[in-house]
Formats: sequence, structure tokens, C-alpha cells
Amino acid sequence: MENIPETVRTKLKRLPKRGSHERQVINGILDEGFICHVGFVVDGRPVVIPTGYGRIDDRLIIHGSQASRMLRAVGKGIDVCATVTLIDGLVLARSAFHHSMNYRSVVIFGRAALIEDEEEKAAALLALSEHMIPGRWNHVRAPNESEMQQTTVLSLPIEEASAKIRVGPPLDDSEDYDLPVWAGVLPLRLIVGAAVTDPNSRVVEPVPDYVRNYNRQTPERPAD
Amino acid sequence: MENIPETVRTKLKRLPKRGSHERQVINGILDEGFICHVGFVVDGRPVVIPTGYGRIDDRLIIHGSQASRMLRAVGKGIDVCATVTLIDGLVLARSAFHHSMNYRSVVIFGRAALIEDEEEKAAALLALSEHMIPGRWNHVRAPNESEMQQTTVLSLPIEEASAKIRVGPPLDDSEDYDLPVWAGVLPLRLIVGAAVTDPNSRVVEPVPDYVRNYNRQTPERPAD
Repeated sequence: MENIPETVRTKLKRLPKRGSHERQVINGILDEGFICHVGFVVDGRPVVIPTGYGRIDDRLIIHGSQASRMLRAVGKGIDVCATVTLIDGLVLARSAFHHSMNYRSVVIFGRAALIEDEEEKAAALLALSEHMIPGRWNHVRAPNESEMQQTTVLSLPIEEASAKIRVGPPLDDSEDYDLPVWAGVLPLRLIVGAAVTDPNSRVVEPVPDYVRNYNRQTPERPAD
Repeated sequence: MENIPETVRTKLKRLPKRGSHERQVINGILDEGFICHVGFVVDGRPVVIPTGYGRIDDRLIIHGSQASRMLRAVGKGIDVCATVTLIDGLVLARSAFHHSMNYRSVVIFGRAALIEDEEEKAAALLALSEHMIPGRWNHVRAPNESEMQQTTVLSLPIEEASAKIRVGPPLDDSEDYDLPVWAGVLPLRLIVGAAVTDPNSRVVEPVPDYVRNYNRQTPERPAD
């Protein structure tokens, strides 16, 4: 699945909604998101839980939460589907039918396994922290033994995965372009506000640079 | 499940992460989100797809997409789990362990059914449109018969549903408050940019007020 060439369909059409299996595209979306929605099956029925994540090379590192409790019970890997979606804009067409959204999403299917090895777990926690806010890890108290035990982390290979992206203006039926209807895109963007210092702080510390200058947006982000 | 009173646990503790079964809380989160992640089971394995949605009273209206193809095949309701998550901030604690996110999420379990009745379907499409951008529906070309047939919409009762919300500053271990570590919240917010007129427009129309003044944020949104 790594760097699968574009198919004739994805290559020739200029459709704004397109699929991709390119590792770089997939990783770019994963690295920009904050939350993945992890689906798993309990008693034959689906459960979808939002949770934090990180990435180490070709593995998605998932904060345990409910899935991990289930995983413990099962005692081995469970089938999951982890989906990350970034919302980029509302696409306002001339017809109700062609309204859409600009977005970038990744869907990963696979078996998530509990990370049990101490060293691997430490690396996974670092990855989760770096994913959330790069540079933070070295400034905070590291997990103690009890905290390490309380924390469950899953690893999901990014192998059976694909991205789906929609960019650009609405695509209306040809004759609808003559309608007296404004059409276009209303861009949406997740922005970072000014840091709010914990009112319960006992020690006065300035807002660190890596917090003050936090910038999530990836440089290669497609234009709206 | 409607307006279940707070339990002793949710009432007395001042924990920043709390669950709720209140209809008003659940609806408030649903009405602010743009995308739900719909989970369903295919051949015993989970699939999670991001899709647009709307709400009519106590029903979630879901844009069909993949789930509807499956639903057609099955020919009756399927078990789904629809999850909506709003990201409000990064919670930077003094210890790695207590890092968290501020968020609001709703998880709905139930059976989604295809909306087949013409009138009901028209109402559902209106609800989807109003959810995305209030006021738009009356300005655009309404769906014709062929478009109506191509569109599949699912209805999911909001009955077995709960909200989970985390707000406020980090909660550190008591002794960690003496560490010389800045702690606090980095707020995140989905903002609307300036409307981008479709470069393929043939008719010059001003950006309508309901687009220019688009404001998604709900007034009752909790403070970061």
C-alpha cells in the first residue's frame, strides 16, 4: 500500500474529491489532527470513541481509553478502524444537491495491539506528547512507575489505510452556473488562541516559547 | 434518558471531565459540530466514516455515504454508533501523565434507518442544509427528482446517547503544583474565514449576509 501509484481514475479526473494511498499524504493528515475516532466491535455492535493519538513512523499510537479495557479482556489484538478528519470548509453550490464540505480524512483498518514493552511504551508516550505539543515533554515531570502502569497505549500499523480529500470550489451542473446564486467556499480552520495560565498555579512561570508560538498548521496544507 | 438528573458523582465532584445525559447538553454539541463519525460493522469488523449530519428534534439525520449502501444491501436498520467531537483546547499539566484535552463529545448508539418517505426525506435534506448553513436552502436550486433519488439519508434516534465534556485547567497531583513548570490551557477553536467566491462564477453576486455573518459558535459554549 505504500506509495501506490494513482489509478487512472484518480489521475485523469479533476474531481475535487479524491482518494489517495500515498504515505506522505496520509501522514500529513495524521500529523495535523488532534483526535482520531476509533471504532471497534462490542457484542457485534459498533462503538466509536474519540481519543488522542500520535505517530511513530508507520504506526499509529492510540491513547488507550475504552478500547484498551476491551483489549485487556480479549487479551490480544482487536480489529479497529481509526479515522482522522480535518474540516477545511463549507462548499456552497448553486444547487442544494451539490453542497459539500472541503475536508481531509484518513481511514486506517487493522489490528490494534497493546504496547507492553517498557521501552516501547516510553517511546509511545513521548510520541503522543510530541504529537500534541512538540517540545513539551522535556519540561514536565516524567511519568512515574505507577503512572506508567495506569497508562495504556495501543499500536496500530498504518498499512491498510487511505486518505480522502476534497478541495476547491463547488462543482455545479453546467446550466446552474447561470443561476443568480452566490457560490463559493466558506473556509474553516482550527486556530490556537492565547494561552490561558492555570489559575491554580503556585509558581509564576512565563508562557514557554513552544506554547506561545504553537502553530499546528502544516506548511503543505492545500489551499481552500 | 431524557433529562436524566445528575448523579451524586457528577453533581458533587468538580472534576473537569464529566458525563451528561441531558438532552440540552447533547443537542448543543450536536448543533455545533459539522461532521459525525459513523461506525458500523461489516463482516464483523468496524468501519468508521466521517459524514455530514443534521438534527430534527430527537433524531440525527445522517448523510448516507457508505453506510447507506450497506443499509440498502441489508434492507433494514443497522446498528450504528455516531460520534461528534468538538475540540476546545490542549490541557498542559505539570506532569506528562496529566496532560489532556478540553473537548465536548456525544456518542449515540442505535439503529439507523433509511428515510424513504418523500416528504420526510425533503424535511431531512432541509435539516442537513440548515445545519450546515442556516438560510441557504431558500437561495439555491432545490433538488430535482433525480437528485432526490440519488440522495440517501439515514435517521438515527437520539435515545441511547451521552455527552462527555472536559473543561478547565489541568488537574495536577498536589505536590506537582510546586514544580517550576508553566501549566494551563491552549484554546483551540474552529473559525470561519472570509468567503471565497467560486472562480468559475458566471454571474456576479455579492456574498449573502447569511454567509458573510456566518457564526457557528453557540452562545452557551463553556469557557475554556
